[in-house]
Amino acid sequence: MSTVPDLKISPARLMESLAALGQVGALAGGGVNRLALTDADRLGRDWTVARMRALGMAVTIDAIGNVTAIYAGTADTKDLAPVMTGSHIDTVRTGGLYDGNYGVLAGLEVVATLQEAGVRLRRPIAVAFFTNEEGARFQPDMMGSLVYVGGLPLAEALATRATDGYTVEEELQRIGYQGPAAVGCPVVDSFVELHIEQGPVLHQQGLRIGVVEGVQGISWTEFTIEGVSNHAGTTPMALRHDAGVAAVRIAAFVHELALRHGGPQLATVGSIQLSPNLINVIAHRAVFTVDLRHTDEATLARAEAEVQAFAAQCAAAQGVACSHRRLARFEPVVFDPMVTALIAQETQALGLPALRLPSGAGHDAQMLARVCPSGMIFVPSVNGLSHNVNEFTEPDDLALGAQVLLQVLVRLAQRDA
Amino acid sequence: MSTVPDLKISPARLMESLAALGQVGALAGGGVNRLALTDADRLGRDWTVARMRALGMAVTIDAIGNVTAIYAGTADTKDLAPVMTGSHIDTVRTGGLYDGNYGVLAGLEVVATLQEAGVRLRRPIAVAFFTNEEGARFQPDMMGSLVYVGGLPLAEALATRATDGYTVEEELQRIGYQGPAAVGCPVVDSFVELHIEQGPVLHQQGLRIGVVEGVQGISWTEFTIEGVSNHAGTTPMALRHDAGVAAVRIAAFVHELALRHGGPQLATVGSIQLSPNLINVIAHRAVFTVDLRHTDEATLARAEAEVQAFAAQCAAAQGVACSHRRLARFEPVVFDPMVTALIAQETQALGLPALRLPSGAGHDAQMLARVCPSGMIFVPSVNGLSHNVNEFTEPDDLALGAQVLLQVLVRLAQRDA
Repeated sequence: MSTVPDLKISPARLMESLAALGQVGALAGGGVNRLALTDADRLGRDWTVARMRALGMAVTIDAIGNVTAIYAGTADTKDLAPVMTGSHIDTVRTGGLYDGNYGVLAGLEVVATLQEAGVRLRRPIAVAFFTNEEGARFQPDMMGSLVYVGGLPLAEALATRATDGYTVEEELQRIGYQGPAAVGCPVVDSFVELHIEQGPVLHQQGLRIGVVEGVQGISWTEFTIEGVSNHAGTTPMALRHDAGVAAVRIAAFVHELALRHGGPQLATVGSIQLSPNLINVIAHRAVFTVDLRHTDEATLARAEAEVQAFAAQCAAAQGVACSHRRLARFEPVVFDPMVTALIAQETQALGLPALRLPSGAGHDAQMLARVCPSGMIFVPSVNGLSHNVNEFTEPDDLALGAQVLLQVLVRLAQRDA
Repeated sequence: MSTVPDLKISPARLMESLAALGQVGALAGGGVNRLALTDADRLGRDWTVARMRALGMAVTIDAIGNVTAIYAGTADTKDLAPVMTGSHIDTVRTGGLYDGNYGVLAGLEVVATLQEAGVRLRRPIAVAFFTNEEGARFQPDMMGSLVYVGGLPLAEALATRATDGYTVEEELQRIGYQGPAAVGCPVVDSFVELHIEQGPVLHQQGLRIGVVEGVQGISWTEFTIEGVSNHAGTTPMALRHDAGVAAVRIAAFVHELALRHGGPQLATVGSIQLSPNLINVIAHRAVFTVDLRHTDEATLARAEAEVQAFAAQCAAAQGVACSHRRLARFEPVVFDPMVTALIAQETQALGLPALRLPSGAGHDAQMLARVCPSGMIFVPSVNGLSHNVNEFTEPDDLALGAQVLLQVLVRLAQRDA
């Protein structure tokens, strides 16, 4: 197999592309808002596809809006499956510039570096961005990559309705990103995702690269409490059916549960809506979400059962009805040992310690792990901030992560068999 | 003084007027939505003013939008201050047909009965409806009557901004109800308000008329919690500054406090808003309201202090900032013994028991009580439902309440001195 010269990515070019995409859907106070399949997402997609084409890559768009760009391999091995990297470019409503975008643009920086050096690898390099990874507008999150690996039927994903009333299919067609490519194509050899940690571990330990061993399990549930609206000043406490009381008691229990389980148990109630939501009217309805995460499947399942049991008991005590529906559920994932080892080796080859850690957030890589050897590289998030307009990673760390990605992709693309 | 013949109000005419006004701002599923100073409120005001004029009453509108209609007394006593009755016609977002509207329309039914019989009384009869009694859009509630009695500076009330961004003055001018009459005019001799109980006491005891001895104290506070937004999947519980956790813990405490104090202590958290209110983002802000009510001022003040102390302590424990502002505060009110005795006498004169009870809700009568002898008459609310589209009172009870009002107004208007 042909030898590959030492290659160095261009930090300046990488930072320019991050800044440019960060201008699309930019918020006044900093950060960006490119909720999935909005006009802002469309503009971000247009910008990214244009950059892929400018690099001479072949771009395909599939039926759920996933976009894949191919940098061809050497002519004699053109039939080999590509090594894929990538992430997502949709954001939460008050997102930062790096979550997802960094992985996609670093992948394109790797291709730009290979092209500039006139280097073709044994296997093609694919750079992809997947639809609706955040799940902030449509649930479940990681929708595009989940459909890509066959974990969610295409029709079901397309029919998903946002809180604003539109379906995924309506919005995909509106912004012109429901493509002709078959879902799940191209079949890939392996997958590596570069991402900011979105947590405090690397920053607190002063480390610059993290080798992600796996992803914790995620459980999203929406609870709906139905009570009776009544006058707040004339209804004795004993005669109330207050949906709000049940909601806040269950939400408080969810927090206490996380503290009681301890360790890697996370629990968040990030969304609560009371109806009619007036100061002097007892709420007849409360809708709220519960986000539970754990690296151990059994503990995660126990947490779900505890919350549901308490909710039922609390609702009964308040004389209200309680129902719930699952919005998303993913078991913990362990990444491929070969890929994880490669990332550790290339990190150490740069003279850096290679801390192995789990991912707290869900990522497209956990979906790709179902169909091919997959892994992830983390760089630090200052103060662990993410899903926040103040999300920040040092430019030197961003460049270093892209360099590790380059070396890992070359190793994967060049390997025999 | 001239004797007054036995007069009987017309139940059919009263029910027709309630049904007609109930059509203005009617909701598809029943009930009405005439939030203060909206287009629907404007239409309700237009309908009511037209009815006042049709009865030959002199209508005046003051600078805060309170509307007063006068039915003149006998010529030789035309300088005496009028006996006033009335209430409000604004509603909560999901209101019923009787809250407020009943008191205004029953007052007009009394005038219609007097006019039909060609009866003039020693004192004029004034029928009024006051602006923004509900406080569902602008705080404080009972705004119009509070300004009327000098309890709130006109300029301050006019500058009050709704959650939808408009001020009281902007909306009064938009709907054409900022009138030329001086606030507080006419000066009235006495005030009687007829209202549905909005609570379960009369209905549960099978009583048809309630003699209201006073109104419990009301305390409305808005709390704002400021934390830090962060990723729900990557932020260890110990490193969070979750505004939502503080909010639900404080809201749960408010409910527990009411159960602990027991008796007439009421506590409600009817409104909660998290920001950004997303499933996988820790809330950086939570704004919620606390509605506390008690018939005893000292106990009400203690409840306020307990909630504020717990909120401060809970916020500190969660590492978030907590601030609060008072939206409304009214001490318990005791109605005039002369008026209360008259109501009891006229109720018993109809062969009915006259149960004395406090009002759980705030009413315009508690404001008028600051400037003249005042009292209230209650009729039952089926199942105590109010601030609810299913609010209902039996037609026979509505007619009976109007008859008691007629007799009490005649007694007040005819008395010497």
